Formats: sequence, structure tokens, C-alpha cells
Amino acid sequence: MDTLETIHTRRSIRQYSDAPVSDLQVEAVLRAAMAAPSAGNQQPWRFVVVRDADTRARLAEATPYAAPVGRAPVGIVMLGDTRENKHPGYWIQDCSAAVENLLLAAHATGLGAVWIGVHPIAERERSVADIVGAPEGVVALCMIAVGVPEASGPIVDRYRSEFVHAESWDA
Amino acid sequence: MDTLETIHTRRSIRQYSDAPVSDLQVEAVLRAAMAAPSAGNQQPWRFVVVRDADTRARLAEATPYAAPVGRAPVGIVMLGDTRENKHPGYWIQDCSAAVENLLLAAHATGLGAVWIGVHPIAERERSVADIVGAPEGVVALCMIAVGVPEASGPIVDRYRSEFVHAESWDA
Repeated sequence: MDTLETIHTRRSIRQYSDAPVSDLQVEAVLRAAMAAPSAGNQQPWRFVVVRDADTRARLAEATPYAAPVGRAPVGIVMLGDTRENKHPGYWIQDCSAAVENLLLAAHATGLGAVWIGVHPIAERERSVADIVGAPEGVVALCMIAVGVPEASGPIVDRYRSEFVHAESWDA
Repeated sequence: MDTLETIHTRRSIRQYSDAPVSDLQVEAVLRAAMAAPSAGNQQPWRFVVVRDADTRARLAEATPYAAPVGRAPVGIVMLGDTRENKHPGYWIQDCSAAVENLLLAAHATGLGAVWIGVHPIAERERSVADIVGAPEGVVALCMIAVGVPEASGPIVDRYRSEFVHAESWDA
């Protein structure tokens, strides 16, 4: 799929068909995630790919808005390894760029996904990290539910010209 | 350009030809940025598009690694408006997803760009916000230099299978 078309037609997908998602499909979206830039190329992203229905059910109840993780065939927990970052303050930005690549790659390959926020709410971070057994210093940033879309929402144009300033804020 | 090809061949571009970048080209990358998902669709991203050479020279000296902003025809300051977020902790993730869309759209349309970190280092945030006149509560996340690439670097495969865990961290 064309890049701009992918960017502009991607929607958060929260309902999935019964169609399976293969390990190769999962690897393709993780490969895209890891192609993101990161501060000093520190690559702080880590992933736990959860297919087990019981674990997904627990993740679905660990934070608000996480029900899609229970319904999708695959739940991906995205974590930041903050233990030895060259640029410690930047792992959130690095990992978020990787999530966006993952979402775009999912859409471009016929899958649908939704980004479910975890960090920076400490209680949610702990709940999710505990379920997947992440060690101290590896922080859950978000979860991503991945499946074959049952339906997509309408395409929307989010462009807002008032968010763009020429040369300076008040110009 | 195909989405996965764009994701995998995007590189940080720090050297630019003399070719101009049109306002339409800038609008296309900003439009892509604003197509990113955000927590509760709060769209906290704001942009100052700087073409003025004196302003770009000041931005280039405002933070480390910012020299490309001085060389590129266009410098984009990306800010997060934190003043009335529905989900206050999430603006960094929201804006970072938008940056990644912007970088991919630039590459897909024949431009080259590089993400220059500003937040969370408070001194850098203040320097950049002062130069573009951002009001209190509008925080500079990063700068993005955009131009026509003079040369690109080699394509690298950043996939690391050891970053992927099946079912749980220790599995």
C-alpha cells in the first residue's frame, strides 16, 4: 500500500474477525517497529507477544480501554528498557515512533491494530509489567491489539491549519 | 512508495541539496503528522515552520546535534500544547507518533529529514520555545530538519530477535 494512503487511512481497530494472524505477520510488524529512529540509535524497545487467551484476558483487565487485547488473536506489550540508555530521557519518544511504525505496517499488510496507553500511569505500568514478568527497569509503555479487522471506521481528515505557525508562534 | 519499503529505507538525513522545498511539500508532511493517533484524539501537536535563515541559525545552536536545521531549507519545531489535554501524560507519545508519520511522509515524497531531540531537557525546551515565541505550556518536543537529500546512508536492518519475547519475558 502507498505510504501516504496508509498513513491517512489507518484507523484504530478494536473489532476483529476470526481470521488468524501468523507468526510471519507478527514478525513483519515488529520488524517495522524496530526500523524506527531512536536517540543515539539506543533502540530501547522490547516486545512481549501474547497469544495465550488467559494472559490476554488478564491484560484486557489491567488497564482501561484494553478490552481489544482480549478480543484480538495477538496482544503485543511494548516495553522500554530504561536500564542502560545512552539518552535516558528519550525512551518514550523512541518507543512511540516504533509503535507508529507497527500500526502503519499492520494496516499496510491487511491487519488492524489499536494503541492502548499504559505509561505514564504508574499503577497501569506495574499491572502490565507484572502480568508479562518484566524485570525492574523495563517499563510497559503501551499494549497493541492486533487482528484482522472486522470493520473499519470512517476515514477522517485531522489536518488543522490553525496548528501550523509560519516562522514564529505569533506570526 | 510502498509503506514497508518506506519504513525500512528511511534514514536520518543531515545533508541537503540546494533544491527548494515547496509549501505544498511542507503541508503534505504536516498533514501526515496530524493523521497520527493520540490519546482520546486530543491532538496536542503544534508546529512552527521556519524558513528564515537567521531563525534557523539560532535554532541550530540552541541544542546539540541541531546543525541540520541550519543547513536545511525548512526547520520544523514540533511542540506539544499541554494546556488543556484530556489525557495530560500522553502528549509526548502522541507527538512522537506524529513525528514518525512526518519522517515517513518526507521520505515517501522524495524529501529527507532528521529528528532532533529537545524534550525532556528543560534548558533545551526553553531555548527552542523562546526562539519561536511559544507561550507557557506549549513545550518544544523536537525539531525536524527537512530538505532534499544530498545523499543517504546505507540501509540497515535493525531487527533484533532477542528483543522479542513469546508469551512472557522469561519464556
